[in-house]
Amino acid sequence: MKFDVLTLFPEQISSFFSESITGRALKDGLLQLNTVNIRDFSKDRHNSVDDYTYGGGAGMLMMPGPVYDAFESLKVRPGTRVVYTTPVGRVFDQSYAEELAKEDEIVFICGHYEGIDERVIDKIVTDRISIGDYVLTGGELPALVIMDSVSRLVPGVLGNGESGADESFQDHLLEYPQYTRPDKWLDMEVPEILLSGDHAAVDEWRLEESIRITRKLRPDLYEKWAASHEEYFIKKEKKARKEAEKERKRLKKLANTENL
Amino acid sequence: MKFDVLTLFPEQISSFFSESITGRALKDGLLQLNTVNIRDFSKDRHNSVDDYTYGGGAGMLMMPGPVYDAFESLKVRPGTRVVYTTPVGRVFDQSYAEELAKEDEIVFICGHYEGIDERVIDKIVTDRISIGDYVLTGGELPALVIMDSVSRLVPGVLGNGESGADESFQDHLLEYPQYTRPDKWLDMEVPEILLSGDHAAVDEWRLEESIRITRKLRPDLYEKWAASHEEYFIKKEKKARKEAEKERKRLKKLANTENL
Repeated sequence: MKFDVLTLFPEQISSFFSESITGRALKDGLLQLNTVNIRDFSKDRHNSVDDYTYGGGAGMLMMPGPVYDAFESLKVRPGTRVVYTTPVGRVFDQSYAEELAKEDEIVFICGHYEGIDERVIDKIVTDRISIGDYVLTGGELPALVIMDSVSRLVPGVLGNGESGADESFQDHLLEYPQYTRPDKWLDMEVPEILLSGDHAAVDEWRLEESIRITRKLRPDLYEKWAASHEEYFIKKEKKARKEAEKERKRLKKLANTENL
Repeated sequence: MKFDVLTLFPEQISSFFSESITGRALKDGLLQLNTVNIRDFSKDRHNSVDDYTYGGGAGMLMMPGPVYDAFESLKVRPGTRVVYTTPVGRVFDQSYAEELAKEDEIVFICGHYEGIDERVIDKIVTDRISIGDYVLTGGELPALVIMDSVSRLVPGVLGNGESGADESFQDHLLEYPQYTRPDKWLDMEVPEILLSGDHAAVDEWRLEESIRITRKLRPDLYEKWAASHEEYFIKKEKKARKEAEKERKRLKKLANTENL
């Protein structure tokens, strides 16, 4: 997977991405990173890349020319995904990350100041992506967020201890709480069931916790999960009915014993 | 505004944050950054901070002790907001950023591997925050995203050309398209109305574009905006009625002329 990043701050991209898990993957050749400084494509002697906004308004806007020339310098294969990170975009989520992870090269364009002239975005961008409903000082962090989430889906990038299994958003549910050693820490203990060795009971506890937390924190995600898991509710109803029957039988037996 | 960041990768935080707009604000003393390496609080000779998950499952979890000791070393004032970035959290948005910008110190805890033992989170964290519905390799990028969005709300951090005005999410609408010089670029022109000098017409065009784009891309945000802007629809109806009346009069006059 190759990432090309067009930015005014190439150092911010390469210094962050060259550390930790993605840094190791760069060294191992599983990922490639190519940063391009948009300012190198300025046409005037002040190296300027921005100008005032037509129609008025505070703040400067990046001009279309330098962005376009920087992009053209990449000479990417036609059809390459070109991402512009902007609040005015499709909302990024885990399934979008999975979609992008199928590519072998992705170009990112990072805006700064008030953004980039709309025409160059219309001309070269295939994906306008929003990582969330908040405003940032530039497009560098959103690009890193997308690169990071896509990278960890590239086979081999995650090592031992960094499993991609059982994560949040698989199937819309948030993750259950997790615990490690020591089993007693300060005055707080690990839930007993997790120490029981009963795998089926652990799995059930984790699913119930995931459902409870998702329902409380993110009713929107819970609805999506519930809509595609009718069998869960049927099973739960059956179990409740069985327990009620068992209880009725026990009480009947008890009454009979008392009658003796 | 002071940010304390507890992390296994302090370099990732400080190298990113020390560049561009936030870097300038650090130099100007408008922001303070204090990173703490959680590994420095490991108690064993291998400097380990993680261990296996109780109840089974792939991946390692950060132990509660080193995180707690790193936090205690800060000696922050009771009541200080302590943020843990996790998909299992309240969804971050612009109003949440505005809420955090009122603080004068915020602590961030960055998880790695499969996350952090739940007990230490229960004990010290005040805000579990999710920046979006995707999985990342660690909590460093989400912490930087929150720090960046909060920083730009701190008075003086944004300079000229980096206006905080007219941004997306003010009032739930996404931003209209923007254009700068040159007015003709390749075969693409700036919309004529933006060159007209008619401020009222420009404002109306921008509002209509914002509404159109928000409605198309983000019906969820559009609904929120529409719910609190009845006056917009009343005004629009009035204008349409006036135009229809004017047209009726014109046609009547035309018919009368023909009858002569």
